[in-house]
Amino acid sequence: MRIGILTGGGDCPGLNAVIRGIVKSAPDDVEILGIMHGWKGLVDLEYITLTDDDVEGIHIIGGTILGTSRTNPFKSEEMSQKLEENVKKIGLDAVIAIGGDDTLSVAAKLSSMGYNVVGVPKTIDNDVSNTDFTFGYHTAVNVGADAIDRLHSTAKSHGRVIFVELMGREAGWITIEAGLAAGAHLILIPEYPMTIDEIVNYVKERMENKGYMIVAVAEGFKPTELENVVGDKSEIDAFGHIRLGGIAHYMAEIIKERTGYDTRSVVLGHLLRGGTPTAFDRILGTRYGVHAMKLVLDKDFGRMVALKGNEIISIPLEYAIATKKYVPFDYYKLAQIFFG
Amino acid sequence: MRIGILTGGGDCPGLNAVIRGIVKSAPDDVEILGIMHGWKGLVDLEYITLTDDDVEGIHIIGGTILGTSRTNPFKSEEMSQKLEENVKKIGLDAVIAIGGDDTLSVAAKLSSMGYNVVGVPKTIDNDVSNTDFTFGYHTAVNVGADAIDRLHSTAKSHGRVIFVELMGREAGWITIEAGLAAGAHLILIPEYPMTIDEIVNYVKERMENKGYMIVAVAEGFKPTELENVVGDKSEIDAFGHIRLGGIAHYMAEIIKERTGYDTRSVVLGHLLRGGTPTAFDRILGTRYGVHAMKLVLDKDFGRMVALKGNEIISIPLEYAIATKKYVPFDYYKLAQIFFG
Amino acid sequence: MRIGILTGGGDCPGLNAVIRGIVKSAPDDVEILGIMHGWKGLVDLEYITLTDDDVEGIHIIGGTILGTSRTNPFKSEEMSQKLEENVKKIGLDAVIAIGGDDTLSVAAKLSSMGYNVVGVPKTIDNDVSNTDFTFGYHTAVNVGADAIDRLHSTAKSHGRVIFVELMGREAGWITIEAGLAAGAHLILIPEYPMTIDEIVNYVKERMENKGYMIVAVAEGFKPTELENVVGDKSEIDAFGHIRLGGIAHYMAEIIKERTGYDTRSVVLGHLLRGGTPTAFDRILGTRYGVHAMKLVLDKDFGRMVALKGNEIISIPLEYAIATKKYVPFDYYKLAQIFFG
Amino acid sequence: MRIGILTGGGDCPGLNAVIRGIVKSAPDDVEILGIMHGWKGLVDLEYITLTDDDVEGIHIIGGTILGTSRTNPFKSEEMSQKLEENVKKIGLDAVIAIGGDDTLSVAAKLSSMGYNVVGVPKTIDNDVSNTDFTFGYHTAVNVGADAIDRLHSTAKSHGRVIFVELMGREAGWITIEAGLAAGAHLILIPEYPMTIDEIVNYVKERMENKGYMIVAVAEGFKPTELENVVGDKSEIDAFGHIRLGGIAHYMAEIIKERTGYDTRSVVLGHLLRGGTPTAFDRILGTRYGVHAMKLVLDKDFGRMVALKGNEIISIPLEYAIATKKYVPFDYYKLAQIFFG
Repeated sequence: MRIGILTGGGDCPGLNAVIRGIVKSAPDDVEILGIMHGWKGLVDLEYITLTDDDVEGIHIIGGTILGTSRTNPFKSEEMSQKLEENVKKIGLDAVIAIGGDDTLSVAAKLSSMGYNVVGVPKTIDNDVSNTDFTFGYHTAVNVGADAIDRLHSTAKSHGRVIFVELMGREAGWITIEAGLAAGAHLILIPEYPMTIDEIVNYVKERMENKGYMIVAVAEGFKPTELENVVGDKSEIDAFGHIRLGGIAHYMAEIIKERTGYDTRSVVLGHLLRGGTPTAFDRILGTRYGVHAMKLVLDKDFGRMVALKGNEIISIPLEYAIATKKYVPFDYYKLAQIFFG
Repeated sequence: MRIGILTGGGDCPGLNAVIRGIVKSAPDDVEILGIMHGWKGLVDLEYITLTDDDVEGIHIIGGTILGTSRTNPFKSEEMSQKLEENVKKIGLDAVIAIGGDDTLSVAAKLSSMGYNVVGVPKTIDNDVSNTDFTFGYHTAVNVGADAIDRLHSTAKSHGRVIFVELMGREAGWITIEAGLAAGAHLILIPEYPMTIDEIVNYVKERMENKGYMIVAVAEGFKPTELENVVGDKSEIDAFGHIRLGGIAHYMAEIIKERTGYDTRSVVLGHLLRGGTPTAFDRILGTRYGVHAMKLVLDKDFGRMVALKGNEIISIPLEYAIATKKYVPFDYYKLAQIFFG
Repeated sequence: MRIGILTGGGDCPGLNAVIRGIVKSAPDDVEILGIMHGWKGLVDLEYITLTDDDVEGIHIIGGTILGTSRTNPFKSEEMSQKLEENVKKIGLDAVIAIGGDDTLSVAAKLSSMGYNVVGVPKTIDNDVSNTDFTFGYHTAVNVGADAIDRLHSTAKSHGRVIFVELMGREAGWITIEAGLAAGAHLILIPEYPMTIDEIVNYVKERMENKGYMIVAVAEGFKPTELENVVGDKSEIDAFGHIRLGGIAHYMAEIIKERTGYDTRSVVLGHLLRGGTPTAFDRILGTRYGVHAMKLVLDKDFGRMVALKGNEIISIPLEYAIATKKYVPFDYYKLAQIFFG
Repeated sequence: MRIGILTGGGDCPGLNAVIRGIVKSAPDDVEILGIMHGWKGLVDLEYITLTDDDVEGIHIIGGTILGTSRTNPFKSEEMSQKLEENVKKIGLDAVIAIGGDDTLSVAAKLSSMGYNVVGVPKTIDNDVSNTDFTFGYHTAVNVGADAIDRLHSTAKSHGRVIFVELMGREAGWITIEAGLAAGAHLILIPEYPMTIDEIVNYVKERMENKGYMIVAVAEGFKPTELENVVGDKSEIDAFGHIRLGGIAHYMAEIIKERTGYDTRSVVLGHLLRGGTPTAFDRILGTRYGVHAMKLVLDKDFGRMVALKGNEIISIPLEYAIATKKYVPFDYYKLAQIFFG
C-alpha cells in the first residue's frame, strides 16, 4: 500500500506532529510518500519517501517539513489532468491532505471523483465549526499572550496606549483569547465593530484611572465609521480591511489625534505562526495524524478528522468547508467584563 | 450581598485567574471577602476584602493570593462549630470554594446543611471525570514537556537513559501527555503496570538502535514485581508507592544494574505546579470564576462549574467527588505507537 | 540621610533590579525617595517613599515602578529653578539618576553645580563605550533571537524571504547579536551600509541554494543608494532613516520587486524592551544598584557605575556622555562568516 | 589540510555553536573531521566528516552532535599508542579539543609531545580562572532562575520552605547567580559553609516575617557540623558531599525537624545542562569556534581561546588547568544583602 501525504495553505505549529503521527502509526507494509508543497507536488511530481527515522523528533519543530503552497490544481485543466496522471503514475492508494478550506476543498473534489482521500483540518484561526480546536491555535494564543505580557511593563513605565495587532481577518479568536489571557484592557475583533467614539471613551476612562493601556486588535477589525474617516479609499483592501501599516498603526494614529495620549503600535504577524508548538498542539496534531492513518487503514475515505470534547472523531469531508466559527456574543460579553 | 471565596488543597496555576474572574464579574453592590488558607480561614476568621484593584493582573501569577491549606473543619466538632459561627458572624450570603476532592467534599457537606455554596474544581492531575479539563493541568504538561525537551540533548550527547519523574499518584495524565508531547521513548504510568523485564527489553532495543533514551515515569507507577525486588518494605508507602528518592531514582538504579547502560534520574516535582499559567489555563480559570459568580447571582447553589467541549456548564456539587478519570486504554495504545 | 532615585528615558528590563539593589542595600537610617517620571518628578515634586517591602520581588518585572519621561529640566529656566527649590525643599542629600545620555547629562550638570549626584547608565542598545554591558541589552538580544528562531520554520515552509526589524538607530548591536545567535542569513546594520544590488545578490544566492532566508535589519540601516531609490523624500526622517512602515517593510517591497521572491516583514519594536529581564540583566542591574548606593555612602559623588570584565567600577559622570560604542569591523566580519 | 575536532566531558549548551563556528569559518581547502565521543573516538577511530550543511542550524541545539565521553587515553599505554597511530593514519594536521580540565589536560600533553593542538574551554560551572565566562553557564543560570521563579508562587501559597538544589560541587557560581537573579531568600554554596544553627535562624526570621522561603543550595554545600550530624558516614562521598538524595533533601529534612516548618526539596540536576543555549552562549560558542579555527590557520598551536571583557584572546594551553575561580567574598557579601 502506498499513501501520499501533503500540507497546503499557511503553515501552522503542529503540522509536523501530524506528519509524524501518520508515519509512525503506519504498518510496516505501508509506504508513505511525502508530497512536496501541497497539491503543487502532485502536479509537478515532487515527493520524498518518509520513514520512521525521517520523522524522529520533528513534532517539536514549527512549520512543515513538506513545504506548502496555495496551489489549487482545479484552477486549470492542465494542472488537474497532470495531477490525476501523477496519482496513477506513482500508484497512490490514498492521499491524506492536511490543510484549510482551500486545500480540503480540493480533497473533497478528488474524493467526489472517486479517489481515496482523508482530510486533516488546519487553521491557526480556530474558526472551523466542525471541530472544537485546531492545532496551532493554542500556540498562537500563547505566543500572543506572552507578547502582551511583555508590553504591559513598557506601556506602564511610559504611560502609553499600546495597540497590539494579532491575526484574524474574519474571526477574532486569537485576539480575544490572547487578550483575555494577558489582561488587555480593550479587545477589538471583526465580529463586534465599535465606533471610534466608543474606543476613545474606553481609552479616556482607562488612562484617567490607571495611566496606561493595552488594546488587542485583530487585523480584520474595522471601526464602524471607517469609510468616513479614511479619506484615501486605496488604503482599504477588497475585504474592507485597512491596508497600509495595518489597523494597529491606524488606530494608534487616530487615537493619539483624538485623545492626545502617547500611543504606539506593535504588529505580531508571523511571530504567531512560527516556532515550536505547545504540548497541547503537539498532542492534537499527533492524535489527528494517527486517526487519519486509521481512517485510511479502515478504508473509511472521504472523511476528515475532528476533535469533539476529548475524543478524536471523523466527519464527512464535504462538511469541512462548512460554516465558519465566529466568536459568539456570550464569549465577547465575558471578555467585556475585563475591559477598562 | 457578601460572598466569601477560598482556595484549598495543593496550589495550581490558574487559581488567581478564578479569583480575579469572580471579583471582576461581581456587581458593584456585592462585597467579596477573600478567606485565607482555605477552610482554615473560616475557622480562624482570617480574611481580607477583595476589590477590582486587588486583583488587577493577578491572573498571570501562579499559586493563590489567598493561601491554601488542607484543613478539613469537619474533622473536629470544635472546628466545624467555629466555622458555622463565623459564617454567621461575618454575614456571608454565599461561599465559593475552589479546590479538589477534599475541599469540595466540605463544600458539599455545607451545602447539604443548607448553606449557599458554589464549587470550582481544581486538580492539576486532570483526573476529575465531570469536567473535560481542569486549569493548571495544561501548564503542568507544558512545563513537563519543556523539561523533557531539554533532557533529550544531554541524554543523546552522553548516550544515557534518563528517567524523568512527573506528578500523578493514581492517574497518569500529566506524565502521558508531557511524554507524548516531548517524544519520550517509554512512558510508565500507574494505570498500566509493566514488569521490569518488559522495561529492560524496551531499554535494550532503543539503546541498541538509537543510543539514548528518555523514560517518562509517573510518581505513582509501580513495576509489577516490585514487592519481590525491593527488600526493605519500609521504602514503600501506604499506597504501595516507592518512597526514598522516588520511582525515577529507583528505576534508574535497577535498569543500570540490569542493562549496564549509564542511567540518570530527574524529578520535576514542584516545578510542575509553580509559575505563570499558560493562556489556556488563565482563560479556563477566568471562565470558571465568572461562571461561579453567575451561579451565585442566579441563586443556583449547591453546584459546581465544569467544562464540556467549549462550554462552561454546572453540575450538582455532590457529583464533584465522583469517579476518577483514569487514562483509558485507547489513549495508552496511542502513546505506545511512539515507544522505542 | 535622604536619597532620591529616579529613572529617565526609554524603559529597559532591569531598571527595577537597580531600584531594588539601591533600596535593599541602604542602611536603616537612610531614607529612600522614589522620584516619579524621571527629572519631571523633581520639577512637579511627585515622589513616594521606598521601603524594603516596596521592592520585594520587583527585580523580575520589566519597566520601572517609578515611571519615566524624557523631561530635561534645563530646557527651561522655570523648570530648573523649580527643581533646585524642590531638592532643597525635600532635603535630598543625594540623587541617584538611572538613565541614558539625556538623563545623565542633566545629572552631570547638577553635579557640576555642586549637588551630590551618582549615575547609573541605561541603554538597551548597549552603545555606551565606558561599560562592557548595560542591563536590558541581553534581554533584548534574547527576545530578538527567540523571535527569529520562530520565524525560521515559517520562512522555510513557504520558501520566503523574511525581513525582521530590530532596534538600533545608530548602533547595530542588538541586531547583529540577535541575528548571529539565531542564524539570520544576512544582517544589515547602520554601521555597514550595503547597496541594494549587494543585498539582491545575497538573496538570490541563498534562495537558489536553500530556498528560504531570514534577514535581520536594524531600524537605522539605510541602503547606500537610498536617496536615488526613494522618490518621495518625505518618507525619510531627519536622521535619514526610513519612516513609513519602517526599513523592514521597505526592504521587503524592493527585494520582492527586484528578485520576484515572496517576501514578508516583521517589526519587533517594543517587544524587545518589555518583559521580565534575563538572569544576567537582573544581576547586572542589582550590582549597579548596590554599587551606586555604596558610592553615595562613600560620598564619592559625581561618578557613574560601570562594568569592566566581571567587576563593577565607577568613572566620572562627565564621561557618561562619551563616544558611542559602534559595532567594530572585526565583529561584523565574524558575522559575515555566517551570511548565506 | 585536515583538522579533527572533538568534545569531551559533561555536555553543555553551546558546544554545537563552537562546532558550527569552526566548520563555517574553515577555508574551502580545509577538511574537518568530527571525532566521535571525545578522545575515545581517536582511540577507536570513529569519526565523520563535517561540511557546512552538516552544521546548518545546530547552534540552537543543546548537547553536542559529536557525542562525548570522559575517556583519558593516557590512562593506558595501549590507548595512547592507538591514539598516536590513528592521528597519523588519518593524517590530522591539527586537533581542536573542546572540553574541561580533563579533556584539555590530554590536549596539553599531546601539545607538549609535539602535536598541533588548540583548546576551547568548557565548564558549565564557570569556574575557570583564565576566561571571564564559559559558554553554557548563562543558560544554566537562566534555567535555574526560571525554575526558582516558578517555585516562589507555590512556596508562598502553602507557606513552605523550599530547598532547591543546583549544580556546583566546588564552586557555587550557578547557585549564587541563579539565586540572586530569582530572589532566593538564602543561598548556600561550598565556598561559604554555615552552621545548621545559622541556617535555622535565617529560616525562623524569614518565616516569621514573610511566611515562605526559597533556599538555593549548591550540590557541594556542606553545613559546618555535618560530620557530627550525620551518623552514617557512608552517606558522605569522597569529597565530603552528601550522597543519598542530595543536600537539598537532607537540608529539608533537618530544617523541618529543627523548626517545625513545612519543607520541600527540588533538585534541578540535568535540567540545567540541557536544552537550547541562550543568545549569549550561542554567540560565545560561535566566537570561540571561529577564533580556534583562526589559531589553527595561524599555526598558533598549543593555545586555548578565552574571553576577556568583550574580546576573544588566546592563552597557553598549559594554563588551562590553572587555579579554579571560586566565588569571591565580595560577591557573596553582595548576595547576603538580599538574604531574608
